[in-house]
Amino acid sequence: MTDPFVKCRLPQEIEALAEPGLYPFYLPVEERPGGGEAVVEGRRVLMAGSNDYLALSDDPRLKEAGTAALCRLGSGNSGSRALNGTLALHQRLERELAEFLGRPAAMVVSTGYQANLALSALFGPRDVLLADRHAHASLLDAARLGQARLRRFRHNDMAQLGALLEEAGPEEGVFVLTEGMFSVGGDLCDLPGIAKLAARHGARVVLDSAHDAGLLGAGGRGAAEHYGLGAAVDVQTVTFSKCFGTLGGAVAGPRHVIDYLRHTARAALFSASLPPSCTAAALAALDIIRTEPQRRRAALSAAERLRSGLVAMGFAIPPGGTPTVSLRVGDALAACRFWAGLLAEGVLANVMLPPGVPEGSALIRLSVTAAHTSTQVDRMLEAVATVTRRLGVGGGVGGGSAPVPA
Amino acid sequence: MTDPFVKCRLPQEIEALAEPGLYPFYLPVEERPGGGEAVVEGRRVLMAGSNDYLALSDDPRLKEAGTAALCRLGSGNSGSRALNGTLALHQRLERELAEFLGRPAAMVVSTGYQANLALSALFGPRDVLLADRHAHASLLDAARLGQARLRRFRHNDMAQLGALLEEAGPEEGVFVLTEGMFSVGGDLCDLPGIAKLAARHGARVVLDSAHDAGLLGAGGRGAAEHYGLGAAVDVQTVTFSKCFGTLGGAVAGPRHVIDYLRHTARAALFSASLPPSCTAAALAALDIIRTEPQRRRAALSAAERLRSGLVAMGFAIPPGGTPTVSLRVGDALAACRFWAGLLAEGVLANVMLPPGVPEGSALIRLSVTAAHTSTQVDRMLEAVATVTRRLGVGGGVGGGSAPVPA
Repeated sequence: MTDPFVKCRLPQEIEALAEPGLYPFYLPVEERPGGGEAVVEGRRVLMAGSNDYLALSDDPRLKEAGTAALCRLGSGNSGSRALNGTLALHQRLERELAEFLGRPAAMVVSTGYQANLALSALFGPRDVLLADRHAHASLLDAARLGQARLRRFRHNDMAQLGALLEEAGPEEGVFVLTEGMFSVGGDLCDLPGIAKLAARHGARVVLDSAHDAGLLGAGGRGAAEHYGLGAAVDVQTVTFSKCFGTLGGAVAGPRHVIDYLRHTARAALFSASLPPSCTAAALAALDIIRTEPQRRRAALSAAERLRSGLVAMGFAIPPGGTPTVSLRVGDALAACRFWAGLLAEGVLANVMLPPGVPEGSALIRLSVTAAHTSTQVDRMLEAVATVTRRLGVGGGVGGGSAPVPA
Repeated sequence: MTDPFVKCRLPQEIEALAEPGLYPFYLPVEERPGGGEAVVEGRRVLMAGSNDYLALSDDPRLKEAGTAALCRLGSGNSGSRALNGTLALHQRLERELAEFLGRPAAMVVSTGYQANLALSALFGPRDVLLADRHAHASLLDAARLGQARLRRFRHNDMAQLGALLEEAGPEEGVFVLTEGMFSVGGDLCDLPGIAKLAARHGARVVLDSAHDAGLLGAGGRGAAEHYGLGAAVDVQTVTFSKCFGTLGGAVAGPRHVIDYLRHTARAALFSASLPPSCTAAALAALDIIRTEPQRRRAALSAAERLRSGLVAMGFAIPPGGTPTVSLRVGDALAACRFWAGLLAEGVLANVMLPPGVPEGSALIRLSVTAAHTSTQVDRMLEAVATVTRRLGVGGGVGGGSAPVPA
């Protein structure tokens, strides 16, 4: 017998970061003064690494709703939804969310990660899952937990998806898994292409709207609404930790599918339910998403300014118009230097390192929210320009999206 | 190609519940007036199905701490711990929790389910997992997500565990997975037996203290402290949705193991971090757990009253002294009738049905908390007696614990 802890070494890319100040992860936020800023290491910086696209986590209405629920119903539910942890408030959120998304039913769970994991109950031994290469880690974990065979197609490659659909046997059930807006690259899925292929072959479409629900489409219903293809999506998952400004997630779809998940999805059955404060905050967020389209417009307008500024600098930014872009800046060390350079300029970004992304394709991920003013976006762009010059990364460096780890 | 949704039918046991009022799941709690009660269907009932053993979810100090953090830091963190979602508050909770549990380090994640799932990063292709048959679903899901081979031993059967340890090859790393206090039966793991065997064979012990951290041991550190065997446990997981009265969880262990998990555990890396309100509530709960042993004593005293009352009625209750007991009451329909009968008597319990438990061994799970008075426990016992008489289940029906679904 050998010691199973011998594997517990830090990834090489992390161990190589000998210089102080280059480690880009787990930097603690000390305060959130609002206005698209955060306090880290004792100073105010621009938060350019958040998924709070509508800037709702700071909204007084969410705070008020969360506080009221916390005081009335307690700090937790002490049990699973199925047994003793369902609140009338959860049911109200499920009804309103289903109606908002234009789906017959919805099931609320405690994290967005668990909303996707819950799907594993749908993935039976005679099913095939065809997943976009850039699909989120939680969809892939759902595939691993389920019993279906997983095959992946190149990012948004409809020719390859079509070929894989052709290969499915007559006894097999097929799911196509993709994200509406991809979390790292900020680009959109080719839903028109997927919808056409799925309809032709009788496959079911699962759309992870973690990043696009609340943000895209005239009514904020996400990428499916943006494309006018809500009916082409069979099951839609959302999270409350992006546009909804809190924690939690949901699966929405046909009533019998949701009822089935309520009795079979382990990530729902064997986990404590969403606390009153988060549930109430999500309800308040939903109300704002329905009634204040100007927040979406503000986020997309900041996105447009960021994107066109980066393109003007020579970065190749894939289209999509979303508030998230990724810049390819070389190897892990180069990316960490870039990140540290931005932080020195007062801009807190995200880093994605190999093996999470291909070797030599480490990424800096930038995101803007409805809270960011034009002046703030310009400060982000100036910081990128300064660091690019200083490090000699140079314009023309490719932008791009990258898959999450397999 | 076939339709993968054809599998979406309710379990037979649920479909068979034609009579109104027998469906025992997802009953919404409308209000929580405190004092061990809940409002369901418009009336106050005794909550006998909660894991809020110390009754902290209702504590004004948790509410105050949660509210203050919510107002200061927002309703969510909008990102993962690794990227932009770490708060100084998370780090404080990690330090205090590690110190409390007597472990070098701890990593906080957003649910207890995900704390166990995070372990999957430790389970490599050359490892073997030996898991107690009653180990929680989340430990088994971690095993499925990991790459190690899973073998299960009969509940607390040290002879079988010993035999499986003998079979491990010289190249294999071995983990023993168990719960401190088992969630369904309320009994304790045979940690002395496991510790001895693991030490002899060089296996690592993973203890899920979801139900016992905060409750057992002189200092409330859980089953390991209860047995005086903290050092025999290598990795300990806890949840904040039981004794800590909120949501979230943590993995505690050697520093290099926790650092490794911070960079490899997908359930931690790819999920939004714990909101400020839950983090602050968990810190407040930890403070109370450290300083108010009388809450543990109150919960265990209510447990003793419940257990001896059930034994006096003829139920065979396995030892353990914990606030949770399960009564075996026959098939699914009988259990649902029993549950509905208790509810009619003003007591809200939990039901566990096949296939989650063996056919013919459906369970009623009862739990008490520090908030329950002797009078309330006696009311629970009277309700059990009344329903037992009315349904002709009769004393002498076996109590027992049951495995969660495989």
